[in-house]
Amino acid sequence: MNYPDKVYVNGQIVNPQEAKVSVFDRGFIFGDGLYEVMAQINGRFFYEKEHLERLQSGLHKISIDFNANLLPNEIKKLLRAVRLTNKDCMLYIQITRGVAPRQHSYPSDITPTLMMYSVPKVLPEINMVNAHVITRKDFRWSRCDIKMTSLLGNVMLNEEGVQHDCYETILHRNGLLTEASHSNVFFVKEGIVYTHKADEYILNGITRIVVIELCKSLGIEVRESAITLEEVNMVDEAFLTGTSTQIAAIQKIDEHQLYIENEKGPITRKLQGAFLKLKYK
Amino acid sequence: MNYPDKVYVNGQIVNPQEAKVSVFDRGFIFGDGLYEVMAQINGRFFYEKEHLERLQSGLHKISIDFNANLLPNEIKKLLRAVRLTNKDCMLYIQITRGVAPRQHSYPSDITPTLMMYSVPKVLPEINMVNAHVITRKDFRWSRCDIKMTSLLGNVMLNEEGVQHDCYETILHRNGLLTEASHSNVFFVKEGIVYTHKADEYILNGITRIVVIELCKSLGIEVRESAITLEEVNMVDEAFLTGTSTQIAAIQKIDEHQLYIENEKGPITRKLQGAFLKLKYK
Repeated sequence: MNYPDKVYVNGQIVNPQEAKVSVFDRGFIFGDGLYEVMAQINGRFFYEKEHLERLQSGLHKISIDFNANLLPNEIKKLLRAVRLTNKDCMLYIQITRGVAPRQHSYPSDITPTLMMYSVPKVLPEINMVNAHVITRKDFRWSRCDIKMTSLLGNVMLNEEGVQHDCYETILHRNGLLTEASHSNVFFVKEGIVYTHKADEYILNGITRIVVIELCKSLGIEVRESAITLEEVNMVDEAFLTGTSTQIAAIQKIDEHQLYIENEKGPITRKLQGAFLKLKYK
Repeated sequence: MNYPDKVYVNGQIVNPQEAKVSVFDRGFIFGDGLYEVMAQINGRFFYEKEHLERLQSGLHKISIDFNANLLPNEIKKLLRAVRLTNKDCMLYIQITRGVAPRQHSYPSDITPTLMMYSVPKVLPEINMVNAHVITRKDFRWSRCDIKMTSLLGNVMLNEEGVQHDCYETILHRNGLLTEASHSNVFFVKEGIVYTHKADEYILNGITRIVVIELCKSLGIEVRESAITLEEVNMVDEAFLTGTSTQIAAIQKIDEHQLYIENEKGPITRKLQGAFLKLKYK
């Protein structure tokens, strides 16, 4: 992992070593902020409108007064500065409540902090990963619908997967599989696609929404209904979705080997193919 | 609320407007850090050893490699710089995992960030607040034993109390009262003191531990057992504890008025008196 060439901080575009925020930024003191990640593919941000709408909705949920309509213009300036205009790249956006002396409650009259950076990245046409994953109890909060930067829970759960040489950690709550540490998860059982419903226990990923739509348009039955931890040994296919993950086949869940070598399930393959077409249409 | 005169950042003591961290500090990106607050009273930090041991234990839980034994010497330097040596003051300490390009899992070979500041503060001999509080569902994670900076949940719940002109928001989970947004909570019923046990649903406050010990030494029966949300209308007394809160009587919980005007319960008064003696012994 490398730092980006430049970082956007509150209207300034600076070198990464100069990209700083106050220690009194509530993003630093309280994790009081939100983020988004978007992929530019083939000259446009993939589902940009949906990403920015979700960000605006999240800002509203936690009462940060920031107009996401201001972002496209600032993103343009950043991309020009790092010569990534129309190039394939990943964009990270973070908005915090801003800088104030430390106290828990929201200060009035505060200016949100905007930090963004972009790195060149050509996503593979199809994610060829055959992911091994572990399952762990989801001990995060129950407002996972908010894409916040208070991510220590996600970080700890992700690290546990990495320690087990796994690509992701799939989470369960009350016996139901919810999502992964930084992606959504789908299962296939007897030809039907299952994923946890978009309630407060998961982040409603843009790729998740796209995949559900793809299932419908391909005539694959899809249910927003969770698989139980017991059922996980009985699923036929499983895959992860996310902005940079796209659609990644799961090969092994804990000790349950779904596929070997480069095999993958027919529905996973079908969705990966359809997703690829969507990117270049 | 004001900013402190000086801020300690990684060995440097600077003016607050110069106190900055990298936007790639994992404290800013992920809320990947811990904090402590200590009160200096009568020339010494109150229960300093216990605070620093808890911090060290938390660092161990999330695998941040930082030796808390290094802190007393750095704290001395900071206090000298702000002329608070031996003066009554509050000290805030934050340690994050450090600076690295963004990825969820823990980077190896990373240097933790240490940020501290101190502000003059003479705590009242006895907290004379007669707190009004609301109760709300605890939607935070289930590792509240870790005093982390990923605090958006606490911030949202605290804000809800403030919006209701309340001093604190008391939380309940699975029908049991756990703690408040940034303090612990105790109840008294028929002469017996109750507080939630120190498991993963609460932060085991140093003042909480002290108050339990005080009960024992005063011959007051104390049970580390939670009050249910239904029982809350039947309690005789209730109080909050915390480093800056000390012991604060609760006058009203939602619509349940416990006391009026400056009345407070006999056990609350007794504990406040005993706590006062402890501070100056």
